[in-house]
Amino acid sequence: MSKLISRCSTSDSDFQMQLERLLNWDQRESPEVASQVQDIVDTVRAEGDDALLDYTRRLDQIEADSISDLRLDSDQLEQCWRLASEGEKDALRIAQSRIREFHRKQLDEGFELTDDYQNVLGQRVTPLQRVGVYVPGGQAAYPSSVLMTVEPAMVAGVNEVVVVVPTPGGQVNELLCAALFLADVDEVWRIGGAQAIAALAFGTESIRAVDKIVGPGGKWVTAAKKIVFGPVGIDIMAGPSEILVIADGSVPARWTALDLMSQAEHDVVAQAILVSPSITYLDTVESELHGLLDRMPRREILESSLSERGALIQARDLEEAVSIANRFAPEHLQLAVAEPRSLLDQVRNAGAIFLGAHSAEVLGDYVAGPSHVLPTFGTARYASPLGVYDFVKRSSVIELSPQGADVLARHAATMADAEGLHSHAAAARARIAGFDDNVI
Amino acid sequence: MSKLISRCSTSDSDFQMQLERLLNWDQRESPEVASQVQDIVDTVRAEGDDALLDYTRRLDQIEADSISDLRLDSDQLEQCWRLASEGEKDALRIAQSRIREFHRKQLDEGFELTDDYQNVLGQRVTPLQRVGVYVPGGQAAYPSSVLMTVEPAMVAGVNEVVVVVPTPGGQVNELLCAALFLADVDEVWRIGGAQAIAALAFGTESIRAVDKIVGPGGKWVTAAKKIVFGPVGIDIMAGPSEILVIADGSVPARWTALDLMSQAEHDVVAQAILVSPSITYLDTVESELHGLLDRMPRREILESSLSERGALIQARDLEEAVSIANRFAPEHLQLAVAEPRSLLDQVRNAGAIFLGAHSAEVLGDYVAGPSHVLPTFGTARYASPLGVYDFVKRSSVIELSPQGADVLARHAATMADAEGLHSHAAAARARIAGFDDNVI
Repeated sequence: MSKLISRCSTSDSDFQMQLERLLNWDQRESPEVASQVQDIVDTVRAEGDDALLDYTRRLDQIEADSISDLRLDSDQLEQCWRLASEGEKDALRIAQSRIREFHRKQLDEGFELTDDYQNVLGQRVTPLQRVGVYVPGGQAAYPSSVLMTVEPAMVAGVNEVVVVVPTPGGQVNELLCAALFLADVDEVWRIGGAQAIAALAFGTESIRAVDKIVGPGGKWVTAAKKIVFGPVGIDIMAGPSEILVIADGSVPARWTALDLMSQAEHDVVAQAILVSPSITYLDTVESELHGLLDRMPRREILESSLSERGALIQARDLEEAVSIANRFAPEHLQLAVAEPRSLLDQVRNAGAIFLGAHSAEVLGDYVAGPSHVLPTFGTARYASPLGVYDFVKRSSVIELSPQGADVLARHAATMADAEGLHSHAAAARARIAGFDDNVI
Repeated sequence: MSKLISRCSTSDSDFQMQLERLLNWDQRESPEVASQVQDIVDTVRAEGDDALLDYTRRLDQIEADSISDLRLDSDQLEQCWRLASEGEKDALRIAQSRIREFHRKQLDEGFELTDDYQNVLGQRVTPLQRVGVYVPGGQAAYPSSVLMTVEPAMVAGVNEVVVVVPTPGGQVNELLCAALFLADVDEVWRIGGAQAIAALAFGTESIRAVDKIVGPGGKWVTAAKKIVFGPVGIDIMAGPSEILVIADGSVPARWTALDLMSQAEHDVVAQAILVSPSITYLDTVESELHGLLDRMPRREILESSLSERGALIQARDLEEAVSIANRFAPEHLQLAVAEPRSLLDQVRNAGAIFLGAHSAEVLGDYVAGPSHVLPTFGTARYASPLGVYDFVKRSSVIELSPQGADVLARHAATMADAEGLHSHAAAARARIAGFDDNVI
């Protein structure tokens, strides 16, 4: 049996080294990519439509005479919707309605509180005005990603949602356009890469600048998002997709093998890891992987990602398995165990947690409800799934009463004096009752 | 009367141009700063303590034999607390308690929902494990910033809060240390600049890496935060501080003048803008500014920032004034009007909104409750005040029942087929009741 996927045990003397190897993936953009991306961003920022059109023609090999040729209008989208099968339309509709229902629970009303001095302090939550959504095109064009990024923005109440999706070689993915029709977005542009990010961030003659850009992309898109961050908001720095499955042996080994493969088939750098205390189970899953491989059209990608970045890890017990998961902070964590709730409290870092035998990651990818845009490559240590909170912003509200201001002003003046900020102190004292403002 | 602050009116034929000039501030880091910062980050990442110590000695001109000399222990902090005056201690204690009370309202419990098929979908909210807080030192060392950054993290339940604060020339700000004592943070290091950001992001032999870095800093710190973003989380890209006051003439002109000055005295690039329909009021505020200037120790900074970046703008009416504010998306917005609540609904973009004559920005700076770390330079279009939400992350929870998985799996398989992801489709179909998994 050739080495399809590496095996190790937490009791191996070199386990820490093996873990480091699995955790390590050089995500740093090459200086070459970075400088080319900077160049593209600067050019589009300076030259607008002309540069955007030029890059799109060259890099995506599209024939277009003007920017308006790169816009997909609603008639074109509707035509794609009509071409979809009934099963596809059903799946998209059900996904949309479940995604909406889940994300409505994330809506935040804000709050107000009143203190003992009748000061009112609060938090207003307002939707962003105009958002750009990057949807990958070409080989990895996923209709599901349209709904998983756009619907949370819609639920948040964003005024204008602009989608960019590259169509390399002019190939338009029809089901993706059907999803765009269903999602009822405001504008769709057939542009991609760093040039699309620059256009969204700084605007061109034809495309108005947005307030925030969300959605995953390849290394060019990620590098461009990092460059434009500041003038415009961005979501997360996306890396390759990953799954970590913790198994006690109670879930059919074939299911687990398929779950690992459905992650690994995305990309040669995708990561699929299984951690189990049972060596028998690890053995069985390993032979399932071997047995299933031949039936998979994406066999080459599977072989690469499983052998390069996958692993079957034997842990001492389930607790140790969870601590390994916390170390990985995986995008997807499957608790393929008989009593997943008993492990849940120990889970600290994971983008999405799937509980039990029937909660396959793939069901979350398409229809369960929560967004499949999740923090990758350890960023679940600090980042969250894409959600309604990404499409709103908060403002603090401070409404002080005369007597409340009087009390606060005395303490503020003390602090301002200590910080050597004379105007601050004076502005505070002006609010003290009976203060003689000739003395400042 | 010399031109202390520029005047314009929305009816001026060149008003748009004047507005553009005020909105424009070249926030792009110079290529020189960027490359030096990259160099520092790379060196600290590669060489750890040695490089950190070397940079700190050179750039902050500190004498230190080892990294441990750069740590401030709790005894040292306690000593600073004892040196503070009773008034200062009171002010810090009251600020702490009010900040805590406000931020407790931001705590998010997460949720769970159950659909018609007994599928449970939810969102878990967990605090970050280890957070680095950057507190500016040297000339702009503000004790208040300690509480305004650390307390939201404490309320969120962050396990370890690490503060870095530069002490140029070895000068330790005693009141700032008193605030650190009160805040009861876990570690304090006398380091700053890009070298501190690199140490927090990647760790050294003595300082363990954190999950996220928050807090404002100068251009070196901001450039370094942008570089390390990805492996570690960051908050916002900070720019100069700013205030926009909308006035109807009902608030004493001297108060408004002091509020503008308390912003302008921060920095020569700080921005203070007043918008009012009343030309008489604008005139009076202008002469108040002139009259007050001589009494202000930070006169030179005030003259620079008011003349370079400040403005008194005459608007047609209060509605137009609010639309100008929305364009600026100011860090601080004061509605210095008789009926501020009637304008509030029209406000779209602002970090913090101060309502009425007694709600001076300075009271929010120190003691009102909401954090004074706010989005600047137009980023209030998409960003929020620093809050508890910056110190937690969310995980989606997906727990499907056998019958629920069966329903979802059919739609998921349809989508996976359409996307050409065979393993995804197989992993979905495996969850369909009675599915023969020899046929995949």
